[in-house]
Amino acid sequence: MISAELMELNAIVWMTSLTPIFSFLAWAEITPLLATATAFDTDSLVLVGVLLSLVVIYLTSKIGGELSNQLGLPPILGELVGGVVVGISALHLLVFPEGGANSFNSIIMNLLQATADLDLKETSAILKTQSEILTIFAEMSVLVLLFRIGLESNLSELLEVSPQATLVAVVGVVIPFAAGTVGLIILFGMPVIPATFSGAALTATSLSITSKILLELGRLNSKEGQIILSAAVIDDILGIIILAAVASLAKTGEVDVSKVLYLIISASSFLLGAILLGRFFNKSFVMIADKLVTRGRLVIPAFTFALVMAYFATTIHLEAIVGAFAAGLVLDETDKRKDLQQQVIPIAELVVPIFFVTVGAKTDLSVLNPAIPSNREGLLIATFLIAIAILGKVIAGFAAFGQTQINHLAIGVGMIPRGEVGLVFAVVGSANGVLSKPLEATIIMICILTTFLSPLLLRFVFPEAGWMVAKSK
Amino acid sequence: MISAELMELNAIVWMTSLTPIFSFLAWAEITPLLATATAFDTDSLVLVGVLLSLVVIYLTSKIGGELSNQLGLPPILGELVGGVVVGISALHLLVFPEGGANSFNSIIMNLLQATADLDLKETSAILKTQSEILTIFAEMSVLVLLFRIGLESNLSELLEVSPQATLVAVVGVVIPFAAGTVGLIILFGMPVIPATFSGAALTATSLSITSKILLELGRLNSKEGQIILSAAVIDDILGIIILAAVASLAKTGEVDVSKVLYLIISASSFLLGAILLGRFFNKSFVMIADKLVTRGRLVIPAFTFALVMAYFATTIHLEAIVGAFAAGLVLDETDKRKDLQQQVIPIAELVVPIFFVTVGAKTDLSVLNPAIPSNREGLLIATFLIAIAILGKVIAGFAAFGQTQINHLAIGVGMIPRGEVGLVFAVVGSANGVLSKPLEATIIMICILTTFLSPLLLRFVFPEAGWMVAKSK
Repeated sequence: MISAELMELNAIVWMTSLTPIFSFLAWAEITPLLATATAFDTDSLVLVGVLLSLVVIYLTSKIGGELSNQLGLPPILGELVGGVVVGISALHLLVFPEGGANSFNSIIMNLLQATADLDLKETSAILKTQSEILTIFAEMSVLVLLFRIGLESNLSELLEVSPQATLVAVVGVVIPFAAGTVGLIILFGMPVIPATFSGAALTATSLSITSKILLELGRLNSKEGQIILSAAVIDDILGIIILAAVASLAKTGEVDVSKVLYLIISASSFLLGAILLGRFFNKSFVMIADKLVTRGRLVIPAFTFALVMAYFATTIHLEAIVGAFAAGLVLDETDKRKDLQQQVIPIAELVVPIFFVTVGAKTDLSVLNPAIPSNREGLLIATFLIAIAILGKVIAGFAAFGQTQINHLAIGVGMIPRGEVGLVFAVVGSANGVLSKPLEATIIMICILTTFLSPLLLRFVFPEAGWMVAKSK
Repeated sequence: MISAELMELNAIVWMTSLTPIFSFLAWAEITPLLATATAFDTDSLVLVGVLLSLVVIYLTSKIGGELSNQLGLPPILGELVGGVVVGISALHLLVFPEGGANSFNSIIMNLLQATADLDLKETSAILKTQSEILTIFAEMSVLVLLFRIGLESNLSELLEVSPQATLVAVVGVVIPFAAGTVGLIILFGMPVIPATFSGAALTATSLSITSKILLELGRLNSKEGQIILSAAVIDDILGIIILAAVASLAKTGEVDVSKVLYLIISASSFLLGAILLGRFFNKSFVMIADKLVTRGRLVIPAFTFALVMAYFATTIHLEAIVGAFAAGLVLDETDKRKDLQQQVIPIAELVVPIFFVTVGAKTDLSVLNPAIPSNREGLLIATFLIAIAILGKVIAGFAAFGQTQINHLAIGVGMIPRGEVGLVFAVVGSANGVLSKPLEATIIMICILTTFLSPLLLRFVFPEAGWMVAKSK
């Protein structure tokens, strides 16, 4: 209780010090006299909150991206770090209640409260709705990103490298899983079930972060890029299957084989089905698009297809983004490819920063603070698990056989980011009572650090690559 | 109570009859056995609900738009009618709880419930969040629409016609206001305050609907189009001022002159300030865009500016869309205009249908059913008010003086749609207890009917115009 009160006090002191920064907006405070006359209801305040949050997101993404680029680093790193700066860890311009923040900590909510004369309860409700909306915005924006990545990838090239990719994926899943689990049991004396869960959380590469990095490197269509992408999709599927297995292990003490089999079959059928039906749907899509004459006759059918595929992916408990990626791959095979890419690029550029800045903003760096004693054991475990997480994927990179002119190190490094799937493990494990709070924080920490490390390292293992920064106007 | 139960029974019977339609999705029902194993939490169900709703919206917009176009009518009419078909009035594929719908009436919610084994309370919470998200999506999409309209309009041409536009706006506000109020008092014996409120609700033209119709007609940059747009912006401001005046009249029995003066001053300063600062900001914007090198270097600064302007508009209680429109106007003056337009078009085409289909879906046609006795007086009043609403604007069209080669009838007809501002009057009036439920429904009905009528009539008063349907790929 005391620490919560101290935090609030802290927030007040800190808010007060910031006041001059947005005092140029203070004239808006005179408007409460109108609040009853016009329909300044909660709905419109949510809209205002979302507007302001998007302004913060876009300013952050541009300032972070440009600075990062000037330092010779990928823009995405700047967006993530920028997100951390404006988020829960520092400036509190963009906070989400699930991160332990209340409306008291949110500068935007304080501004709204001043403008519209709200009480704390109303402000909390607005912050909650606003956060749900921004979260869905971010999730939709990753769908757009992966749809675009699919459009810019080539299905036959992906299939061509699929034997190597499968091996990279399997090795990159087995090594961190096995080494992580065994190491936690032997070195840290952890019980079997949480150790298994933590090991399992190290398995899956983040498709969205990895593919964005490859896009920025201009390496999406290199042999390495194709193997990484392909392996990341397989990884995602393996990760979901492992999650089902370890979650049932955690719950009943044994693995439910029928569930695991069901997942393997449905996930494989989804991918195979997408590829096969895609060949047929290609022609129908072109036929439909040619028949339509009203505005959006290409972009709307294309996104509708992506949304439907994303939905089907969720019904078999794959990530929605796998469906959007598959939709992009299928439409890349049509002769509408060029037109579609051209229209999707500005859409993606507008929405994708929402995802990366939000990921940064939700990251609570305080779990990394070694001055707090309760973090220390977590930090030791985290150091061990991060080493395993990096080494496991780097070794997996060398499993890509039969290619002579290939940068094996780049493949391994490209597979390092654990993003959303790792976070799902943390959330499910914590909800099932398998993971303690510090262990959950440790897993989140691994997702964060691997995400930050991979672009930095890739810059050096692809030394000849420049960031594709000025491709669009 | 009984009628509510009957409605629910009705919904069950009707749902059952529809089951075969989506039984192709029934295989998804076997997935609950996985629901505990994977993180199938409420958040991800909200995402699934939003995905499915967007699929419904896009299918509706394309089917409605194409059919409407084939009948020689504007696509927007098809989107609105399509929205009514999938919405609360008929198919229940897209329902919003504020429209009196519960999760029981929503097909998407029923599907989710079957897929994920939810109870009614969880489903209602998901429907509520999903609806809030779709509502904000729709509001953001009108911002994009008006930003685009601003980009495609020409500030100096708008200013050139501003004397005529001001007269059109003032006449088009005064006639429906005066005739509506006096008519309701004399013909229907209505007390002064609700009559004033209802008359006031007839004043403001819908900027978003009118401008979309002009865009589809290819008449945005005609003399008539410029006068209509310009007058609609002035209308919007007059509407907000009148709302403040009648709301204080309703609350205290007298008009608070200081409030009204404050609104007049702040709204005028906003518009003048936007135009003046815009001239200066133009150069800074081009300078900033030229310095940026990372992705989205044009589209992100442009949208950030639009969001900031939308925010400033809301702080002085104008509609956010007026700010977005002003931002588009300002950026249209830069030499980045062409590049920016090209990038904004696919974005607008993707998001704008969300708004129009949603407006249709929220429209409850049951208030128009003359078989229900309580609707009858409302229908009589509505007929009177609609006649006033149409005639008032048509007469206003002839107030555009000093132009010889001008289609005065087209200007008047173009001003007919009352959209969001009329709805704000209905909501505020009902919340203040000034408008009875039937009177509120009547005002909503007027907003709906004028919106449907205007594109139909415009087709005939601009006989030589074709709908600009195949402008984009």
